[in-house]
Amino acid sequence: MSLITIGTVALDNLETPAGKKENLLGGSGSHFAVCARLFTDVHLVSVVGKDFPKKHLTLLQSKGINLTSVIIREGQTFAWTGEYKKDDLNTAITHTTTLGVLENYNPQVATEQRNIPNVFMANFDPDIQMKFLQLMSKPKFIGMDTMNLWIDIKNASLKKLMKKVHMLIVNDGEARQLTEETNLHLAAKALCKMGPRMVVVKKGENGVLFYSKDHHFAFSAYPVEKVVDPTGAGDSFAGGIMGYLSKVGRVTQKDLHKAILYATTLSSYNVEGFGMAKTAPLDMTKVNARLKELRKHIMPVV
Amino acid sequence: MSLITIGTVALDNLETPAGKKENLLGGSGSHFAVCARLFTDVHLVSVVGKDFPKKHLTLLQSKGINLTSVIIREGQTFAWTGEYKKDDLNTAITHTTTLGVLENYNPQVATEQRNIPNVFMANFDPDIQMKFLQLMSKPKFIGMDTMNLWIDIKNASLKKLMKKVHMLIVNDGEARQLTEETNLHLAAKALCKMGPRMVVVKKGENGVLFYSKDHHFAFSAYPVEKVVDPTGAGDSFAGGIMGYLSKVGRVTQKDLHKAILYATTLSSYNVEGFGMAKTAPLDMTKVNARLKELRKHIMPVV
Repeated sequence: MSLITIGTVALDNLETPAGKKENLLGGSGSHFAVCARLFTDVHLVSVVGKDFPKKHLTLLQSKGINLTSVIIREGQTFAWTGEYKKDDLNTAITHTTTLGVLENYNPQVATEQRNIPNVFMANFDPDIQMKFLQLMSKPKFIGMDTMNLWIDIKNASLKKLMKKVHMLIVNDGEARQLTEETNLHLAAKALCKMGPRMVVVKKGENGVLFYSKDHHFAFSAYPVEKVVDPTGAGDSFAGGIMGYLSKVGRVTQKDLHKAILYATTLSSYNVEGFGMAKTAPLDMTKVNARLKELRKHIMPVV
Repeated sequence: MSLITIGTVALDNLETPAGKKENLLGGSGSHFAVCARLFTDVHLVSVVGKDFPKKHLTLLQSKGINLTSVIIREGQTFAWTGEYKKDDLNTAITHTTTLGVLENYNPQVATEQRNIPNVFMANFDPDIQMKFLQLMSKPKFIGMDTMNLWIDIKNASLKKLMKKVHMLIVNDGEARQLTEETNLHLAAKALCKMGPRMVVVKKGENGVLFYSKDHHFAFSAYPVEKVVDPTGAGDSFAGGIMGYLSKVGRVTQKDLHKAILYATTLSSYNVEGFGMAKTAPLDMTKVNARLKELRKHIMPVV
């Protein structure tokens, strides 16, 4: 079944121990869509400026991502300039953020897209996420992501939105910040009481934790030996979960396990290259090969 | 097969968010032995002062731990006073350390104990670990632990000792410090080239990583919702691995997986109580029940 996502489409300028890159295709929506498209047809809802390089749009289109609701407006594309230090590749240091066309952006969804059953709200201003959700006519499965900034400055909007989603995907720091609970298991359980039926806590190189009222599990990450650029890893992860769950149209325990194994696999590819260098060229043969290695790495044989 | 270990027997005075305790039975050797004894007969090599409470010796004896080579000397028992803060229960803050009888301690091993095949050197001064190892006549399987202090001040002795062991058990910080490699997978691989055939990297609440030249795996931790006192968790972990491997007398991949599942289970019990409040009363029925829960928590069903 189809999947529609709202998220940012950005230009990233970043420096990591592996090097320095400018005007990379980035943004939560782009990274999510480029991974989710491996499983099902994906519709992206976003906005870019007139300055947005044609080649980036062409790349997204070439991956079969539907861009009908990606508006091109006068002004500058949302841009992020940041850095990752060798000693803590999990933490992005932001130098500058240019909102550009994101300012007073009003999500637009084409009429024929409004009945898409699977809906994901990648990291974005929760008020914009809510406006988008209200445009959808009959969402069947709704997931969302967020970030520390929105927990700080839009807490009320965020908590209101959380009541409307089935699955919340956040990282460990966000889970603790949202619940003011330091124990991650208690934090995840607390989040399950704040609206979402399912909570996925991303722990970067330390893997992932899942909680629902019925069951919980924790899988280790794929052993990545050279992290080139962590940007978008969480969005690729979410793309893997939502893409797979949209494809199968079920959320049994087995489906969730499989979805999170795919998510772990895709985020491992994400961090191995700048921007989408590693995720854009992926096909299911490559993905399934690494998923097999991942299972070998995390699965007790006794 | 029998297992002999050298390690500290200490009196711990500690404060954690769960409370404050004094003169608890502690030390790397005690925690290790109290967990390893669940699998095989364990011989402890250590030293205490005349001030050491009889009840602590009685407890160790009541668990079937052989204390023949635990010397009682004039002077004060090794004592540690420390603290754990709510926001970082993985990090011990040391207030005072009283070496007492550990100063110029010379390990003594009774003649009848010198041919015990399984040998573990719990965290201790590497020069003392080496003196002990030299007393053993035909060690078949040798494991060791260490800590940041020895990596700092006895680096040469430590690296010399590492060449003589089959299995090194350290935490993530120690693995990085020993190899000066920030990527934990590369650090573990580097450690495998420094002597030990097998390297176990403990990551606390984030689970464990295993590397050998033949295979590698990473398991998540048991979901502990209330950490009362992390002291000795790493020693309990090591006790689980060495105890199980000594019992089966093999180190196949299956044995290693099972050993590390037991280790994870035992360290989860360790942190749920002060000192040995939770590990001392354990029997294999309780341990196997939690191991079953652990498998459910970390094992993908697809």
